Amino acid sequence: MQFHLNGFRTGDPGVSEQPAHGDGAPGFGALPEEVDVLIVGCGPAGLTLAAQLAGFPEIRTRIIDQKAGPLQLGQADGIACRTLEMFHAFGFAERVLKESYWVNETSFWKPDEARPENIIRHGRIQDVEDGLSEFPHVILNQARVHDFFLDVMRNSPSRLEPTYSRRLLDLQIEPDCADGGASSHPVAVRLECLDPSHEGQVETVKARYVIGCDGARSNVRKAIGRDLRGDSANQAWGVMDVLAVTDFPDIRLKALVQSAGEGSILIIPREGGYLIRIYVELDKLNDNERVASRELGVEHLIAAAQRILHPYKLEVRDVAWWSVYEIGQRLCDTFDDVPEGSEGQRHPRVFIAGDACHTHSPKAGQGMNVSMQDSFNLGWKLAAVLQGRCAPELLHSYSSERQAIARELIDFDREWAKMLSAPLKSSADGEGVDPKEVQAYFVRHGRYTAGTATRYTPSRLTGEPTHQHLAKGLPIGTRFHSAPVIRLADAKPVHLGHVVQADGRWRLLAFADRANPAEPSSRLRALCDFLADSRLSPVRRHTRPGDDVDSVIDVRAVLQQGHRGLALEAMPSLLLPRKGRLGLVDYEKMFCPDLNGGDVFDMRGIDRERGCIVIVRPDQYVAHVLPLDDHTALAAFFEGFMEGQAVSV
Amino acid sequence: MQFHLNGFRTGDPGVSEQPAHGDGAPGFGALPEEVDVLIVGCGPAGLTLAAQLAGFPEIRTRIIDQKAGPLQLGQADGIACRTLEMFHAFGFAERVLKESYWVNETSFWKPDEARPENIIRHGRIQDVEDGLSEFPHVILNQARVHDFFLDVMRNSPSRLEPTYSRRLLDLQIEPDCADGGASSHPVAVRLECLDPSHEGQVETVKARYVIGCDGARSNVRKAIGRDLRGDSANQAWGVMDVLAVTDFPDIRLKALVQSAGEGSILIIPREGGYLIRIYVELDKLNDNERVASRELGVEHLIAAAQRILHPYKLEVRDVAWWSVYEIGQRLCDTFDDVPEGSEGQRHPRVFIAGDACHTHSPKAGQGMNVSMQDSFNLGWKLAAVLQGRCAPELLHSYSSERQAIARELIDFDREWAKMLSAPLKSSADGEGVDPKEVQAYFVRHGRYTAGTATRYTPSRLTGEPTHQHLAKGLPIGTRFHSAPVIRLADAKPVHLGHVVQADGRWRLLAFADRANPAEPSSRLRALCDFLADSRLSPVRRHTRPGDDVDSVIDVRAVLQQGHRGLALEAMPSLLLPRKGRLGLVDYEKMFCPDLNGGDVFDMRGIDRERGCIVIVRPDQYVAHVLPLDDHTALAAFFEGFMEGQAVSV
Repeated sequence: MQFHLNGFRTGDPGVSEQPAHGDGAPGFGALPEEVDVLIVGCGPAGLTLAAQLAGFPEIRTRIIDQKAGPLQLGQADGIACRTLEMFHAFGFAERVLKESYWVNETSFWKPDEARPENIIRHGRIQDVEDGLSEFPHVILNQARVHDFFLDVMRNSPSRLEPTYSRRLLDLQIEPDCADGGASSHPVAVRLECLDPSHEGQVETVKARYVIGCDGARSNVRKAIGRDLRGDSANQAWGVMDVLAVTDFPDIRLKALVQSAGEGSILIIPREGGYLIRIYVELDKLNDNERVASRELGVEHLIAAAQRILHPYKLEVRDVAWWSVYEIGQRLCDTFDDVPEGSEGQRHPRVFIAGDACHTHSPKAGQGMNVSMQDSFNLGWKLAAVLQGRCAPELLHSYSSERQAIARELIDFDREWAKMLSAPLKSSADGEGVDPKEVQAYFVRHGRYTAGTATRYTPSRLTGEPTHQHLAKGLPIGTRFHSAPVIRLADAKPVHLGHVVQADGRWRLLAFADRANPAEPSSRLRALCDFLADSRLSPVRRHTRPGDDVDSVIDVRAVLQQGHRGLALEAMPSLLLPRKGRLGLVDYEKMFCPDLNGGDVFDMRGIDRERGCIVIVRPDQYVAHVLPLDDHTALAAFFEGFMEGQAVSV
Repeated sequence: MQFHLNGFRTGDPGVSEQPAHGDGAPGFGALPEEVDVLIVGCGPAGLTLAAQLAGFPEIRTRIIDQKAGPLQLGQADGIACRTLEMFHAFGFAERVLKESYWVNETSFWKPDEARPENIIRHGRIQDVEDGLSEFPHVILNQARVHDFFLDVMRNSPSRLEPTYSRRLLDLQIEPDCADGGASSHPVAVRLECLDPSHEGQVETVKARYVIGCDGARSNVRKAIGRDLRGDSANQAWGVMDVLAVTDFPDIRLKALVQSAGEGSILIIPREGGYLIRIYVELDKLNDNERVASRELGVEHLIAAAQRILHPYKLEVRDVAWWSVYEIGQRLCDTFDDVPEGSEGQRHPRVFIAGDACHTHSPKAGQGMNVSMQDSFNLGWKLAAVLQGRCAPELLHSYSSERQAIARELIDFDREWAKMLSAPLKSSADGEGVDPKEVQAYFVRHGRYTAGTATRYTPSRLTGEPTHQHLAKGLPIGTRFHSAPVIRLADAKPVHLGHVVQADGRWRLLAFADRANPAEPSSRLRALCDFLADSRLSPVRRHTRPGDDVDSVIDVRAVLQQGHRGLALEAMPSLLLPRKGRLGLVDYEKMFCPDLNGGDVFDMRGIDRERGCIVIVRPDQYVAHVLPLDDHTALAAFFEGFMEGQAVSV
């Protein structure tokens, strides 16, 4: 955590200074007539985006919601490893780790072959494979995740607060809004006030960009004429959060229980040590039948869970929340307002994210996670375009990258949901699913459910794997897989991946060749000299004069020598940059392997002879791997989507 | 973190429910006429005590301070490993870890023998030995530590807030206030209001107990006729917190720099990556000379630091805070109002803690740490007496335990301060101190400065080491040295020591013998049966009917088997206790070794054949080590200072 750069300041360093040129705390009053970004919906996708954009006080962002205030009780609760990595970038991972239930192991139960009316444990496995992430898989009420994002927004330089009690009525995009067109704020949104003192009033807001994070019944989606397409819902499940007393021994483990004749439940222990969530399989729905028509109450769910857990007892003492729902896997074809085939003619002005563009079952614990990753993908792109750092073509990549990911999710969920509700194979005949198969499927897809399997395909933002062999453990297109290192200047053990904050900056991680960077033969030194001095340097090209040298591309070096074996004062000056109003030295740019623990070069398969450059996107994905001395390819990569700044501004 | 025991509740689980019978948020208004505990002074000692007592809403606690509001800029900044262990018990260690500077290594500089006008590095060492604590040694502005304690108070069931702008005028103790005497609130305190709207008004508050945490010029100390005795101050030091640019390579390491002719400085990097604290040795004061008469400004400190760092440059860009002070090591003979020799006739009613009873130099970084440990020692004792769980004799142990610790601190500080300001031995003659000796002294006293060397001597609270061989690595009288374990019910990797929260409860850690606790031969099982069923059981004797079984003595078991090798349902029922309004099962009482990491039995030298009982005090100190089957000695230990409850209430 770095602070005091521009002079000592008392108080909580987690609360940003509010810049004089900012547009002030939005508070709860009327919305401005014009905004840069209007986010519709305070769910996980909307809040992730709002928290990201709140870091840029020069961008006027507003977020609205139909509800009268923050969520108190959420439905989603699974937080994948990958999501905690993102939460770390937003600065609140430690709060989630402290409060949440940690899914350390998962157990599997099936009918006892000797006495099929009883269940027995047939497997118990580690939930996440060793070394997959520095963070565990955890469970926490969605409302708390919202609270943490709201704190990030509140403490940001924008002091952003949601505007509640606003319903989107309609949305119009100026027909000739291709860039260079008539209007700078081409999206007109009409909102109805729902709070008692303004009930029925209609506000009109004009926005440069509108993002619909307004759930499965998204009005924004409808306004841009997109449809969720896919299966009709014909499987019914119930879910309940309960405080209960039981003699079932795995009640504090995630447990999949498949009974012989009563169906299945999935038990998810919850935060706080006592609460548990139970998903209960209800039977198949007939065509056109809706769950609502069944008149199912929580007592039906409890009774089903009790039958499935036999011979164990379950006595529910308190029900915190429950619901019955239908499963349907549905997806939009594109996630923005640009008609297919028109990508060359116009740029997107309206986007949809999260449940607004993909819906599926909750049982793989993916919904909230994928939704937040949607808008984390979009946030830095919007900021870069609004700040004039990138041309608006960049915005097409949101739909193309995230729609492919959502499609994978839908496919996975369809298969997993089918497997969970299929009849069990009995020992006598060959029909149905073997519980062992279910367990094997779960293990096989562990990386997927942890959120670390996401891989963007080559594009202007994602390089071809020509030099992938230089960093075998950091596949291009996947999220940067962190590893422990020692910071050179203060010998602090840190995680390399934690240099990526949710601040819209790119990271250029230069893994050194074998030479000591103090020596003239060092390729790392040559790279630093290029970046600092050449007129072709992407750092110089894309950073505005007067801004800190690391404000667009943050260069960090990982050296091969132990931290006591290097002379700090002999390192390239780019790695000891002067910053801020006072010209202070930033000492946090250089890292060394932990020679007593895992060596990052070995852990991530870095070529020790040649070293390499790993370019990491603002949303933590590896954009490219390049040789240390391929300065031309490095410059060309950034030139592919970033605007030159040094002269123009 | 456990919550939802008495039913599901939305919102931040870190904010306690405020009980209906509590006496309401004290806020900033007038003080009540009677309080149970009045704490004078919102420094580290006072706030530690207030945060502890705030956890007991039935105890009416108030804390006052002369200042008009919370501290913005603190003097102290060193936080020892031991203190972070305590902060964990208060629930905010992770906040300190996130914001603070971590002292990982310390470097030592001396005159270059070839060119004595220059300094050179002669040593660089790990600051804290491996495995000494699960927490590092860190540096953080005292004001932030205050903020965290204030948050604990604010979120506690008492919703305690300090009352500011109150100066203690005087304090009277009713002369015949031995217990059973006339008054329940025998300490009368007169306070002057300093806030503009009540200026000059005098309030009188009657208290059961008053604690002076009001610093070196303590009015409470004076009111009970105690003196700080010791050396007059005759060494002058300066200290400054600065933002600076330098080419000194160890500027982000703690560094002791001893020059040939210009004196010494101690560099302490600070939180946030840019700020540094520099202690500058000024020369000796003459008898009766005071620092104030020197008219020293911060420019003198900067100039001295610049001379000492030669040939490195230091350019100060911003001064956050600076001070010049005199060193004196001074100590009170006793820390309460009971005259020596009268301990049998009366019990203490007034206590002093922190700088009010011991002052010394800041350079060993001990002041804030020892002060907080003072009042952490006192807090649970006051709570136990006020709740009727222990007789007031217990309160004598505060002065006897903490005065001995303060004496050690004074002795250590005198020696360390002398060493730091002594002239350096030059290569030519044998006079003065060798820089190598200074480094060796620092290393030798590493456990002391980490705060882990504190050891209370045998008393009613601290057992004789008769059975110490059963747990060689957990010396009686020292703080419980945590170790990693796996929680049985949910397979979570946790730290065993983290079961100790600052809640006034005792912990009975039962390290199992080799037998599976499911078997009748298990001595652990026999112990659990005794504790659950015997009328001699200290758990039964000292817990009020209707209270949770773990509300006074919290029994936890550490088993020898791997966590997958045990059947949870076969464990002793005392280790799966039913609790709270709903009778829910607490699943967090059993732990297993981490068989892939360090095995706690090996790490702490536990006898595997016999196992043992380790009794841990509410302030985290090991009170006793006993054989698993010595039920009589176990009962006798608690009987020594706790009142029976089962019948009386």
